[in-house]
Amino acid sequence: MRLNILVTLNAAYIPPLKVMLRSLFDNCPDNINIYLIHSDIPEEGIHQISSFVSRHRHNLYPLVIDKELVSKAPVISYYSKEMYYRLFAHAVLPENVDKVLYLDPDILVINPIDQLYNTDIGDYYFAAAEHAKPVIGYINRIRLRTESNSYYNSGVLLMNIAKLRQEVSISQIINYIKQHSNELILPDQDILNGLFWDKIKPLDEYLYNYDTRRYRSYLISSKGRVNMDFIINNTVILHFCGKQKPWKKNYPYRFGILYKYYQKMAERAEV
Amino acid sequence: MRLNILVTLNAAYIPPLKVMLRSLFDNCPDNINIYLIHSDIPEEGIHQISSFVSRHRHNLYPLVIDKELVSKAPVISYYSKEMYYRLFAHAVLPENVDKVLYLDPDILVINPIDQLYNTDIGDYYFAAAEHAKPVIGYINRIRLRTESNSYYNSGVLLMNIAKLRQEVSISQIINYIKQHSNELILPDQDILNGLFWDKIKPLDEYLYNYDTRRYRSYLISSKGRVNMDFIINNTVILHFCGKQKPWKKNYPYRFGILYKYYQKMAERAEV
Repeated sequence: MRLNILVTLNAAYIPPLKVMLRSLFDNCPDNINIYLIHSDIPEEGIHQISSFVSRHRHNLYPLVIDKELVSKAPVISYYSKEMYYRLFAHAVLPENVDKVLYLDPDILVINPIDQLYNTDIGDYYFAAAEHAKPVIGYINRIRLRTESNSYYNSGVLLMNIAKLRQEVSISQIINYIKQHSNELILPDQDILNGLFWDKIKPLDEYLYNYDTRRYRSYLISSKGRVNMDFIINNTVILHFCGKQKPWKKNYPYRFGILYKYYQKMAERAEV
Repeated sequence: MRLNILVTLNAAYIPPLKVMLRSLFDNCPDNINIYLIHSDIPEEGIHQISSFVSRHRHNLYPLVIDKELVSKAPVISYYSKEMYYRLFAHAVLPENVDKVLYLDPDILVINPIDQLYNTDIGDYYFAAAEHAKPVIGYINRIRLRTESNSYYNSGVLLMNIAKLRQEVSISQIINYIKQHSNELILPDQDILNGLFWDKIKPLDEYLYNYDTRRYRSYLISSKGRVNMDFIINNTVILHFCGKQKPWKKNYPYRFGILYKYYQKMAERAEV
């Protein structure tokens, strides 16, 4: 089997991308096609990623998108324009790609990826996990004027590219951004939820989009089930959400030690 | 260079031993001679360890010691008779071995081991790290009637075997055990401190015997220096001291995630 993975980033995110990819490779026996959508990563950076990927016997396909496409889209805080690109993937990916798994670079894959990749997506556009916080769900329902209390995280997205190609035009997304640019707080995620809230198949966040800041609250919400042993044996994706990043100094959450050690060993293996 | 490593255990500790050794191999480019002192590990267990070690291109030398030697020595709580064997190593190791690094099986090596191994031990018998707690040091000084406030942890011991062979007889240690059997709380460690307190070269516990239960207190005692970034880049030995063990369920301390992940990946690599 051949897996299609999608990443979108700028040059600043190349180091964590490599850590994420290494953890993915360690948890996938199959050959992987990695589609990288970007605007301005210099040739040197692309070469760096490409040789990293091919050393691990996988394939990289860089795809350039014109930054003008999202020139008027809002960008706040520590986010970058590139976060929007996942929403345009169906217009950019080669025609033979029908399905892709988008992954943020601030992720560690710690168990086999195939179960997630093979999730039956049916007629949904996406499969994604909520980061369930009831109050937030309610606020977002009002804010984004949806009929859903769910608010999906866009960091792990299984994408039904064939379906999106048939039914969603780029102008539709661009128009939504223009109309709502004053209200978008977590821009690409707000668009995903605002436009597609009823086209998203829910995934289990404990397994496929574990927010590493929330060990205690997950432990409580799962009545003790989602402890460290559960995570190590079952969770596929640890997502280092939020402003504080595990590759920076003084990351405060408990999964930091795992990230930093993994990063160090991955870097050492590259030498 | 060839490193001499010493381990002493019973069959119950084979699984953590393999994890410890794997982490050691990952942090040592040189060839390693592993001396295993035991009494009753069945042939099958020895074979398991031996093939594990040789798969990683290192050498195992099993050495049997008669359990009668310590038949009258006290054993309490979760300890086993085998903990005493490190103190008899100089009587059991082949004559060409002048120096050995003893490691407990409840350890992860996370940085290159050579700096520790090459510590200049001079005329000391041992090099070891204190687990510094001032009050405990004082209590042990009175309890063990030494003139030192130091109390060294026996889980990581660089051993001057040549010197021990010249100066310490087995009967001397056996007599000490007999005379003090009612007072020994942490038996082998009490003997080490009671008999040899002035023959131990101090090692830096942050680097060479980091007690994984003490993240917060180390952070405070080091004025913030020994944070996760420091540990990942500098600490050589994480020691999962105490009754709760990271390979068991519900290990409560923050390094558990690293241990469990490492253990899982090491086991997977063996299949």
